[in-house]
Amino acid sequence: MKPVCLVIGAGAGIGGNVGRRFAKEGFHAVLCRRSDEEGLQRLVAAIEDDGGTASGFLMNAIKPDAIEERVAQVERDVGPIEVAVFNLGAQIGNRTLAETSYKQFEMGWQLATFALFRLASAVLPHMVDRGQGTLLVTSATAAVRGNAGQHSHAAAMGGRRMLCQTLNAEFAPKGIHVAHILIDGAVDAPDTLGKMLGAERFQKLRETRGGESDGLMLPERMADTYFHVSQQHRSAWTHELDLRSFSDLAWWNH
Amino acid sequence: MKPVCLVIGAGAGIGGNVGRRFAKEGFHAVLCRRSDEEGLQRLVAAIEDDGGTASGFLMNAIKPDAIEERVAQVERDVGPIEVAVFNLGAQIGNRTLAETSYKQFEMGWQLATFALFRLASAVLPHMVDRGQGTLLVTSATAAVRGNAGQHSHAAAMGGRRMLCQTLNAEFAPKGIHVAHILIDGAVDAPDTLGKMLGAERFQKLRETRGGESDGLMLPERMADTYFHVSQQHRSAWTHELDLRSFSDLAWWNH
Amino acid sequence: MKPVCLVIGAGAGIGGNVGRRFAKEGFHAVLCRRSDEEGLQRLVAAIEDDGGTASGFLMNAIKPDAIEERVAQVERDVGPIEVAVFNLGAQIGNRTLAETSYKQFEMGWQLATFALFRLASAVLPHMVDRGQGTLLVTSATAAVRGNAGQHSHAAAMGGRRMLCQTLNAEFAPKGIHVAHILIDGAVDAPDTLGKMLGAERFQKLRETRGGESDGLMLPERMADTYFHVSQQHRSAWTHELDLRSFSDLAWWNH
Amino acid sequence: MKPVCLVIGAGAGIGGNVGRRFAKEGFHAVLCRRSDEEGLQRLVAAIEDDGGTASGFLMNAIKPDAIEERVAQVERDVGPIEVAVFNLGAQIGNRTLAETSYKQFEMGWQLATFALFRLASAVLPHMVDRGQGTLLVTSATAAVRGNAGQHSHAAAMGGRRMLCQTLNAEFAPKGIHVAHILIDGAVDAPDTLGKMLGAERFQKLRETRGGESDGLMLPERMADTYFHVSQQHRSAWTHELDLRSFSDLAWWNH
Repeated sequence: MKPVCLVIGAGAGIGGNVGRRFAKEGFHAVLCRRSDEEGLQRLVAAIEDDGGTASGFLMNAIKPDAIEERVAQVERDVGPIEVAVFNLGAQIGNRTLAETSYKQFEMGWQLATFALFRLASAVLPHMVDRGQGTLLVTSATAAVRGNAGQHSHAAAMGGRRMLCQTLNAEFAPKGIHVAHILIDGAVDAPDTLGKMLGAERFQKLRETRGGESDGLMLPERMADTYFHVSQQHRSAWTHELDLRSFSDLAWWNH
Repeated sequence: MKPVCLVIGAGAGIGGNVGRRFAKEGFHAVLCRRSDEEGLQRLVAAIEDDGGTASGFLMNAIKPDAIEERVAQVERDVGPIEVAVFNLGAQIGNRTLAETSYKQFEMGWQLATFALFRLASAVLPHMVDRGQGTLLVTSATAAVRGNAGQHSHAAAMGGRRMLCQTLNAEFAPKGIHVAHILIDGAVDAPDTLGKMLGAERFQKLRETRGGESDGLMLPERMADTYFHVSQQHRSAWTHELDLRSFSDLAWWNH
Repeated sequence: MKPVCLVIGAGAGIGGNVGRRFAKEGFHAVLCRRSDEEGLQRLVAAIEDDGGTASGFLMNAIKPDAIEERVAQVERDVGPIEVAVFNLGAQIGNRTLAETSYKQFEMGWQLATFALFRLASAVLPHMVDRGQGTLLVTSATAAVRGNAGQHSHAAAMGGRRMLCQTLNAEFAPKGIHVAHILIDGAVDAPDTLGKMLGAERFQKLRETRGGESDGLMLPERMADTYFHVSQQHRSAWTHELDLRSFSDLAWWNH
Repeated sequence: MKPVCLVIGAGAGIGGNVGRRFAKEGFHAVLCRRSDEEGLQRLVAAIEDDGGTASGFLMNAIKPDAIEERVAQVERDVGPIEVAVFNLGAQIGNRTLAETSYKQFEMGWQLATFALFRLASAVLPHMVDRGQGTLLVTSATAAVRGNAGQHSHAAAMGGRRMLCQTLNAEFAPKGIHVAHILIDGAVDAPDTLGKMLGAERFQKLRETRGGESDGLMLPERMADTYFHVSQQHRSAWTHELDLRSFSDLAWWNH
């Protein structure tokens, strides 16, 4: 039975590419995303074309029990989740305080903070039983600084980062590795950035950033680091790291 | 008409002492706390004995509209809220992930993050209309590092800090000062620490820490800094500061 | 005998204004600066006109023993240094790595890091003997993030901040308060910013920033916070705080 | 001609193991260390036994021109330095301020901060000419928090971290990757920790930490991450990361 890499938030950007990378390395990828059955099946097919195996599920993560039941089902029917990738975003663009509704603020927390708590609560006990496992958490610059208009996103991501720290503090001694991966730049991801900008502006950004089509962050290359972190020996774990393109200023610079 | 200092979370520790200090400086203190009508009235009476004025309200902050209606009523009937002090805690002690229920995790967010968002949404527009105002936010070490057992508290406080930053980024240019005050130590507060420890252990801690009854953080002295920050000229504002006792290690040391 | 406030780096900006403020509060101000005897005497005279007392010394801080001998002389002849203000800057403008000479890099360290170590080594033992004292350290954004062109300045200021932390860790339990005050913006200081920009550009900046002559940070208002920090009760000390104008973005935003 | 991995500070711990790892991947390793010709030759021989190539040099890094001349000679005679590893430590154990001499404080800066500036000044122009290159900087917890007794070490490492940031800000757009690798724990390194503790205590620590000989950080496993970071695609670079053992608390916890 193959070990499983469970990806929560498996679009055509980071999540899908990370799943594909783990599948190449011998994992069975379980890909969960909210919508776009067709896109999901394309991802599964691409993995199978590479000689790997994968399953795809549409899942509304904020629905009660959705994450919990998926974890239980995979552990029961598919295989041990050795790596869980939490990749839900909660960016809603810049809005003033007046434009940020209570519902939006809560939704940010549901997706970015609480869903991670739920995933951790569901999957970490299995990992503890096995004495090992990795939880890779995609995070955002908003986890470490709050810019204007980011009320919902930054509050939620700030919670995400602190939660990663409390998880590590409790679970590292049990052999479980939780890593907070701060994505500090624009990702070449048609499902998220592409949709936010629209097709035309997205293509223009792709063409104008950097010299050789790599001014945006390339998710298949980001996946290299996700995989590496999951393979670090337990005597040399990274808990917090950032990723950005050479063409971008770090968030602390301006 | 006196300017108002509204305190959300006005127990016998930081909140009550900050209210008292502002009352001494000519503000009308509006003190809100969840329970203990008697304690609340003692605070109001103490302020009046000092020659100040105050009103007290029992308020369950997580009840929908409780904060919003209080702000509206005070602005309408009492006076302009020049200073709002957000002082709700969300510490529930150390609990493992398994011991932290979804409800507790959400409650942390309701109290520590969402209630601040609600207060800001209610009160900042009034301040913007007046071109000035101060929002003082009591925060905790858990806002900057997640210790074992602090899943709910740290996630909520991490969100609180990022929210303070996004508020500042939007409202500082409008003349509104938001300050994140990180309390990095044990406060001599019978209503919170005292209850958590029990009367006997609390008294013992008081006696054994430091030499001259000041090993615990004295809330009336902390109030000096709350008041100072509210009085900073807008050309020299502090947005983030810490407070700890000389007898405590900073959170970054061990 | 009056307590002494010793200011290392007492120009017409922060240093001079902080000295003046302490003099108003009953301290004897000892003002040290590298050059401009006339400017120094104007500061002393202004303090005396306010009814205070001050002494002024020209001092090249990087000269061996200059700081050490001044501390010894003041303690011996003038009074106990209750507050020391370390206010030496080391900004040399933006230079590429190729444009930053070894000598400039070392000079940054001499002024911004080593001179603080020397001041601490000289003055803290006196404070320890008295069981109290305050060391206020002016610092810069470069202490927490390294921007392009700031090789010398950022390396030196990063060292300054860490040194403040190690000093606090050792001396707080002995009753000595060390505070790192991060100045995150442009100060209305003719001796430093004014000289860097030239008179004309400086005046223009003054006029265009903010609405009421307070778009630049006003050093006499910054001095309010320096004084407040020195007066904090030892049960409620601030070790790190920032200061910026309402009209400036915090360093973590852009 | 093989690409070169130049290691400044190549003892039997991180430096030697990183050099060995790069040699396995096809680099010629140039190993520089202050003393122990025999240990140096053992490292070279071990690399050659693995089928790699290496050169070893004794070098006193603080001697003027020592780093600069080595870089020039390697670039001229050996091959292009594609990866430079800066691995000089500056830990001198815990000393009070009174016990920390000016000379020791300066030595910390010479080794931990200035030597990096010199290496960067010497090697980065070559990398810029080639449009690529990596500078991996070993750093320490003292770069982000100053503990009691660490005056020299923390000031120097704080400077090191800020310098990495300014280097990245200037050189990332030119295709040069600078990474700050924060080692947050005790490394199983006989040349440094072993000497500091003495043979007996070191062996005891090795045996008592963790279960399977991996309670200390294993430098050959740390080298995996050094190598990975050097291979990151330029659209997905890490600039700051930490490494610690599963058995250690992160520096921000206690």
